[in-house]
Amino acid sequence: MADPVTAILETYSALTNNEIRRIIESRKSTGRLQGMMMYHLGWVDEHFGPCDFRGGKQLRSTMCLLACEAVTGDYRKALPAAAAVELVHNFSLIHDDIEDGDEKRRHRYTVWKLWGVPQAINTGDAMDVVSYMAIMDLDLDPAAMVEVLRVFNDTIMQLCEGQYLDMDFQTRGSVTVEEYLKMITGKTAALIEASTAIGAMAAGADRKTVQHFRSFGHKIGVAFQIQDDLLGIWGDPAKTGKSARNDIRNKKKTLPVLYAMQYSPRKDELKSLYAKEELSEADIDRVFDILTQAKSYEFTAQKARQLKDEAMAELDGLCPGSRAIEDLRAIGRFLVERDY
Amino acid sequence: MADPVTAILETYSALTNNEIRRIIESRKSTGRLQGMMMYHLGWVDEHFGPCDFRGGKQLRSTMCLLACEAVTGDYRKALPAAAAVELVHNFSLIHDDIEDGDEKRRHRYTVWKLWGVPQAINTGDAMDVVSYMAIMDLDLDPAAMVEVLRVFNDTIMQLCEGQYLDMDFQTRGSVTVEEYLKMITGKTAALIEASTAIGAMAAGADRKTVQHFRSFGHKIGVAFQIQDDLLGIWGDPAKTGKSARNDIRNKKKTLPVLYAMQYSPRKDELKSLYAKEELSEADIDRVFDILTQAKSYEFTAQKARQLKDEAMAELDGLCPGSRAIEDLRAIGRFLVERDY
Repeated sequence: MADPVTAILETYSALTNNEIRRIIESRKSTGRLQGMMMYHLGWVDEHFGPCDFRGGKQLRSTMCLLACEAVTGDYRKALPAAAAVELVHNFSLIHDDIEDGDEKRRHRYTVWKLWGVPQAINTGDAMDVVSYMAIMDLDLDPAAMVEVLRVFNDTIMQLCEGQYLDMDFQTRGSVTVEEYLKMITGKTAALIEASTAIGAMAAGADRKTVQHFRSFGHKIGVAFQIQDDLLGIWGDPAKTGKSARNDIRNKKKTLPVLYAMQYSPRKDELKSLYAKEELSEADIDRVFDILTQAKSYEFTAQKARQLKDEAMAELDGLCPGSRAIEDLRAIGRFLVERDY
Repeated sequence: MADPVTAILETYSALTNNEIRRIIESRKSTGRLQGMMMYHLGWVDEHFGPCDFRGGKQLRSTMCLLACEAVTGDYRKALPAAAAVELVHNFSLIHDDIEDGDEKRRHRYTVWKLWGVPQAINTGDAMDVVSYMAIMDLDLDPAAMVEVLRVFNDTIMQLCEGQYLDMDFQTRGSVTVEEYLKMITGKTAALIEASTAIGAMAAGADRKTVQHFRSFGHKIGVAFQIQDDLLGIWGDPAKTGKSARNDIRNKKKTLPVLYAMQYSPRKDELKSLYAKEELSEADIDRVFDILTQAKSYEFTAQKARQLKDEAMAELDGLCPGSRAIEDLRAIGRFLVERDY
């Protein structure tokens, strides 16, 4: 990770973690329920003893705090919102891990793998409520709080809709580029959009400013996912830590593939390859050739770049002289330009 | 069901269903996501075509509407809250069915059985958000709305805590009566308590009145579950539709059993019977004898009756002359006195 971005994320994620911990611990503990949440967050090991494992990058909460700081010069008013978006993200990960059957996340066993599917479903449900409790700790007048909560509801609904579509696509032969964009908007962009929007709302920004932060988050969120799709096929295994052409091997219907399925002259060949139970190395090479010929790389990279440029333009002229807004731009650029 | 109670529930559940339908349909549909919710609610069949299947009794939403009507003479202000509590109840049922591995509910296949665990988890999550969207449709000033939402959050957290304990108890050798009461408070009473409390809050009742409705709901909720435990062992199969001594057969650690495990002179014998993989008919008879000797029936029945009396006393002097409060009492009595 580019060093300045690492430093930003480390600083702000420590602040968010303190806030999450405060909120979880403010409720009397019930058996191992809180412990399973803390395990998932990376704070305790599977015996609920302390550990120095590091959790996720906490992009969303950091972007939330930076949006608030850009507007007011102080991140603190957004701390409960930063905790809330991180909790929503992690609630959805606990459930996604069950839904996808993933036994490991960040090199550790997932909650369902350790404590079973029933407890994992319930732990995710509990973390979802904790996220609502967190957001309601914002120091806002009730009318502003209600407005934030409407954004929050809508965001979690979009997450569910995106997750529905993602699962549905796996069982479908064809998916259009437009359908795919709707899916990643729900699954990835909605929560990043909410993070920057609610960060600005917590700062008391006016409606127009909030809208710029929201659009920035939305566009960066979509571009972030598209870059992920790109790395899943063209990424350097030495950098991504995944095997080469990983997403082709797993027959994932990501943007470069869907583009070729819709526009390549060899689309029927591609579809019949994706209809196979498993792809051989020769099949993977053929898919790769079809994508190359269809200029899927160029289309995908151009799409990510265009969205990133549009996202950056949303911040033009906002909060002049603010270091936080430059940090937000740096994170936005990193998310789209990273090669791992 | 006693006829007047049936009539009350039928009238109010139709009103709640219209409200739930309005809320679900107010959002653009995403594939079959809304359809799976409507299936669970009993409005469509598994091909998403209309059906005349009847859903649950909708006790919670009816009690919510009656509390509001008792205070103001009109149930309508509480309609979004009635929809919300019913949606929370059903979200938790969708997840409970997965957690318990139940393939059928109300004589139909459960959501996970028809569409798989991943989609069922996500459908429950989505229904949880819809419940928040519903409650935020209440016509309240923002400060009152925030207060309702805090009750709502706390309620769903209690549901998760109760569900955690319920699952935890299944794997534990011993559970105290006190722990058990905490579990059913979360799993059953919390949402009934929220229903009557929020019904009164939606009506703009003062704090003291709200507290009486809340305590009524809480006590009736606990008594309702205890009566369920009683019927699970001493219920008449011809009336309950379940096999005789059903809960003993399933080794459920319900109140009559826990009481005997804690206070019977034969408690060790009882515990070793419950440690067996499966109970023979002779084992079931032995458990039944131990419970009879320990006066578990008398203890349980007395506990339910006492809570019911305390609940009824909460309503004394409230909303004099209101038919709705008499209906609420009738439902309360039915929940505790029913023999099926």
